[in-house]
Amino acid sequence: MTKKVAYNVAVVGATGAVGEKIIEILERKKFPVNELKLLSSERSAGKKVSFNSKQITVEKATPESFEGVDIALFSAGGSVSKQLAPEAVKRGAVVIDNTSAFRMDENVPLVVPEVNEADIKQHNGIIANPNCSTIQMVTALKPIQDAFGLSRIIVSTYQAVSGAGTQASKELENQTRQYLDNQEMTTELLPVKGEEKHYPIAFNAIPQIDVFQENGYTFEEMKMINETKKIMHAPNISVAATCVRLPLFTSHAESVYVEVEKEGLTVTDLWKVLVGAEGVVLEDDPGSQLYPTPMSATNKEDVFVGRVRRDLDKGNGFHLWVVSDNLVKGAAWNTVQIADRLIQNNWL
Amino acid sequence: MTKKVAYNVAVVGATGAVGEKIIEILERKKFPVNELKLLSSERSAGKKVSFNSKQITVEKATPESFEGVDIALFSAGGSVSKQLAPEAVKRGAVVIDNTSAFRMDENVPLVVPEVNEADIKQHNGIIANPNCSTIQMVTALKPIQDAFGLSRIIVSTYQAVSGAGTQASKELENQTRQYLDNQEMTTELLPVKGEEKHYPIAFNAIPQIDVFQENGYTFEEMKMINETKKIMHAPNISVAATCVRLPLFTSHAESVYVEVEKEGLTVTDLWKVLVGAEGVVLEDDPGSQLYPTPMSATNKEDVFVGRVRRDLDKGNGFHLWVVSDNLVKGAAWNTVQIADRLIQNNWL
Repeated sequence: MTKKVAYNVAVVGATGAVGEKIIEILERKKFPVNELKLLSSERSAGKKVSFNSKQITVEKATPESFEGVDIALFSAGGSVSKQLAPEAVKRGAVVIDNTSAFRMDENVPLVVPEVNEADIKQHNGIIANPNCSTIQMVTALKPIQDAFGLSRIIVSTYQAVSGAGTQASKELENQTRQYLDNQEMTTELLPVKGEEKHYPIAFNAIPQIDVFQENGYTFEEMKMINETKKIMHAPNISVAATCVRLPLFTSHAESVYVEVEKEGLTVTDLWKVLVGAEGVVLEDDPGSQLYPTPMSATNKEDVFVGRVRRDLDKGNGFHLWVVSDNLVKGAAWNTVQIADRLIQNNWL
Repeated sequence: MTKKVAYNVAVVGATGAVGEKIIEILERKKFPVNELKLLSSERSAGKKVSFNSKQITVEKATPESFEGVDIALFSAGGSVSKQLAPEAVKRGAVVIDNTSAFRMDENVPLVVPEVNEADIKQHNGIIANPNCSTIQMVTALKPIQDAFGLSRIIVSTYQAVSGAGTQASKELENQTRQYLDNQEMTTELLPVKGEEKHYPIAFNAIPQIDVFQENGYTFEEMKMINETKKIMHAPNISVAATCVRLPLFTSHAESVYVEVEKEGLTVTDLWKVLVGAEGVVLEDDPGSQLYPTPMSATNKEDVFVGRVRRDLDKGNGFHLWVVSDNLVKGAAWNTVQIADRLIQNNWL
């Protein structure tokens, strides 16, 4: 099979926070697009979106929308993916899905290109894009796993509201203004849309992202645990997660503790493997107060790592601070990367 | 020795964030005050502060200020404590010091009344009040240590700006308004006053609290590590900390992982010891989205614990979410509690 020169691409959820970012990246990266189809729910259909200096009208997504589409990028929620992704595949498209709908399906590769690019080849029409907080963590940990082996991960997250969609960012802005103006805060959405209780996020920290599972963990925490094992091909690695929503608009940070298999390593050993790693930027110099923050990582494609230090008790334990833009590497850019590797490797 | 009916009390740093809170609590708790002396730097001297419906003029703190003082509560920075606390002791006062000046001095008890009240008795004139993030963690963990033994603690903090003083709260407010108004943010203070680099805290997360040590940890992280071992009388416990400053005005939260010595425990076993513990309030019901947040803990004296769950891999590992008001239990209330126990036990 020879590569086409350009591809018909569909973006499902084109008016959402991730969809908008995907369109921006397709344009900026000069992705080989022949025709771009922008799809959404009925509510957003009719809106116009600019792409490569042309105005494209958003259409309501239906099974027939995918006729002639080569690559379909889904980020319109799990139920939309469950309903329409198989329809797109049936019509010959390869789907890259940003929701949790197919991530743990053993017939669906779950991919972070820097970590498990080769898994893309195994696809049966659908490739899943991992959860944002998982993507940045495995990108940072992959070079450590490769060089030294990884036996344990304990992560506490510092997550931005944009992971919960455009409305959540609006809610943070509104509540912040209300709080500063001594007004009562309007709490309608966070932590989870549609759930019974809502807590203010402005000047607060909410230890709940997504719904609770029977075991007391949230679904977000279980995503980090299960997806990490699948992407890293390491079912025996111990992973524990605590996920916390914070008053940040963009970029997630993570306090990550790891235990490596190799004994006697120093911080310099970890620096050496991180500094050359694909998709990773090391920003780590306590002497000059250099470390990444959510604000410094925003609108960038890389995963930034700082504060690498050895555990003071456990010889093979290390602590790291991992930051990345949750809408870019955590969603849109990882999706476009997968699409690009599909093409470059002739795996479409 | 018989108890006096009322005591001459001095508050050093009376116009700071913690000093103001101490005065408020002395009044609200009807602490047996005979004369209240409010002391400060030259800059704040002359200000008037209300206490029990009287106006008290703040005076410049000098060695002579402590003549006739029974109990002196210091929270004006480490250098002030180092200079003036010995002068107060020389004049017969017992000092309760909120700074890090004497905390690790082996002749100075470091006290959280719910954890190690009896240590107060060993004082030689000075009793140290621990770091805010340490206080709430050891209060929550003490009942677990007593019931089951504790071998390991890994904590990641979510800390409010008021821990860095009134100016830091002002900086958060200013930057937040600037950001929402699309203006450039003024960064002058955080993460550490007087350090070379300053980062915005509004809508951001800064993984630096206090200055860096040679080992790559910050001084705040080392305080949590060393103070926890001293307060809990557990030099062999493994403690690791990552301390992060967030855009919260008040109350710190902590994601705490612990390993207990006893095997086979369930979440219910931990709930049972936490629910009856002094100074601890259990707010933990995932089914009804019940957990503490910094906002729900603000202006309260207790330490709130939620999200208790078993580690999915390590049988004796548990995760907790611990929240408390950093200015109340984390500083002022713990200080007044120590003063109260001094009196009640005739240890003055």
